[in-house]
Amino acid sequence: MTRQQIIENIKRKKSFLCVGLDTDIKKIPQHLLTAEDPIFEFNKAIIDATAPYCIAYKPNLAFYESTGVSGWISLEKTVKYIRQNYPDQFIIADAKRGDIGNTSAMYARSFFEHLGVDAITIAPYMGEDSVTPFLGYNGKWVILLALTSNRGSHDFQLTEDHSGNPLYKNVIAKSSEWATDSEMMYVVGATQGELFREIRKVAPTHFLLVPGVGAQGGSLEDVCKYGMTKDCGLIVNSSRGIIYASTGTDFAAVAAAEAKKLAEQMAALLPF
Amino acid sequence: MTRQQIIENIKRKKSFLCVGLDTDIKKIPQHLLTAEDPIFEFNKAIIDATAPYCIAYKPNLAFYESTGVSGWISLEKTVKYIRQNYPDQFIIADAKRGDIGNTSAMYARSFFEHLGVDAITIAPYMGEDSVTPFLGYNGKWVILLALTSNRGSHDFQLTEDHSGNPLYKNVIAKSSEWATDSEMMYVVGATQGELFREIRKVAPTHFLLVPGVGAQGGSLEDVCKYGMTKDCGLIVNSSRGIIYASTGTDFAAVAAAEAKKLAEQMAALLPF
Repeated sequence: MTRQQIIENIKRKKSFLCVGLDTDIKKIPQHLLTAEDPIFEFNKAIIDATAPYCIAYKPNLAFYESTGVSGWISLEKTVKYIRQNYPDQFIIADAKRGDIGNTSAMYARSFFEHLGVDAITIAPYMGEDSVTPFLGYNGKWVILLALTSNRGSHDFQLTEDHSGNPLYKNVIAKSSEWATDSEMMYVVGATQGELFREIRKVAPTHFLLVPGVGAQGGSLEDVCKYGMTKDCGLIVNSSRGIIYASTGTDFAAVAAAEAKKLAEQMAALLPF
Repeated sequence: MTRQQIIENIKRKKSFLCVGLDTDIKKIPQHLLTAEDPIFEFNKAIIDATAPYCIAYKPNLAFYESTGVSGWISLEKTVKYIRQNYPDQFIIADAKRGDIGNTSAMYARSFFEHLGVDAITIAPYMGEDSVTPFLGYNGKWVILLALTSNRGSHDFQLTEDHSGNPLYKNVIAKSSEWATDSEMMYVVGATQGELFREIRKVAPTHFLLVPGVGAQGGSLEDVCKYGMTKDCGLIVNSSRGIIYASTGTDFAAVAAAEAKKLAEQMAALLPF
């Protein structure tokens, strides 16, 4: 999906919401457990209910890998289901991969060719040749970790170099030389508040994938105040706050209501 | 597997070789392609041939994920095969995972409970709460990326803070507070030569997992000269140099010969 298509989807739907599919067999409603593939049944219901209010889905690989082969089957079915029924949705594999060149090339094959998602999250620690093998796929995106939403983000990402530049800024500055804003985005946690202002100094036009609204406590207003661009420039994710809003038989309807609520807040904050 | 067991295996076998199972369907011998599960057939033959000369196997997750579900089936069969037939082998999932706490906990479940490996490689970028969920599993290990073997390792890992400490040293120093040398190792690339001396200043007793000998050009002699401890303290990996040494029907025998050659070089370099 191109940058222009993403922007058009945001304009049309008045939403920049991404629904995180962190689907945990231990957390989904009891009544689904008798289905042949409970994870897929849950995802399907969540997707059908929330699709009008979001522009992206983000399956979190850890949750699928936790059951090995059967989890991968559920994941492949989920991606295929979105593709066939909601072709305007941007699909992000939240995988946080990154390895030496030949291995990253295999991961790229896995996610872009085999699984067929639009984007993958990548960890920058191993540098340029761990990231560039994911580039050059037409219409596909690398979403590089910059400043994450968790407490541990302060351990290394804020460490300043001799010039006073924190690591996350060096990651953005250096990686901007590897790819344009039409093939790379950055992960910036909603919990980082005013630091979005710093991010926009080094990435004025890039889209940012923003986790941490909801269960993790980030503020949508702050994210928009400090992070929004004229093209929106934000894809804000909510996972647990939407998909586990109810654990009863009404889970899909309640998820839809939560997604709608977030989308309405977003509509009011959009610049167009 | 405990630290003591690893050391005893190294002493008994006079080898600290890890064979990397970077098994690529596009690179394995043609005659295996008619098998029901060519990846597993290849691994089985490589494992049977090389087991006398190594103390660890390291399946590289990217290579299995590249074919999705069928790759995960091959991976699960491979781990089970090693467990059942060579219970003294240390199994490392080279996965380079790392995410926010609840997601890392899912990855830990995936690799330690479901897949049942002994160790997993982890990327440190997201800090403490991305790493600690992998700890506390009895006899299981976190192998944290410190100074990797690739060219891109210089992009961020060598960036110095105000005190002149490079990122990789900060990663080791800080993570040493999270875990002991009986539950954490570090990845240090064989291509880093004299920097092993710097590593040993901050991690004098930890085991180091060392990729980059062979195809990537690292020197086993330098690694041992600057990195070896009285307990050996090194697990040196070779992947492509062993498993693809021949692509003919003799691939297993040639892999065994390559593994044996490396093990003999190692025996001569061991301190016991």
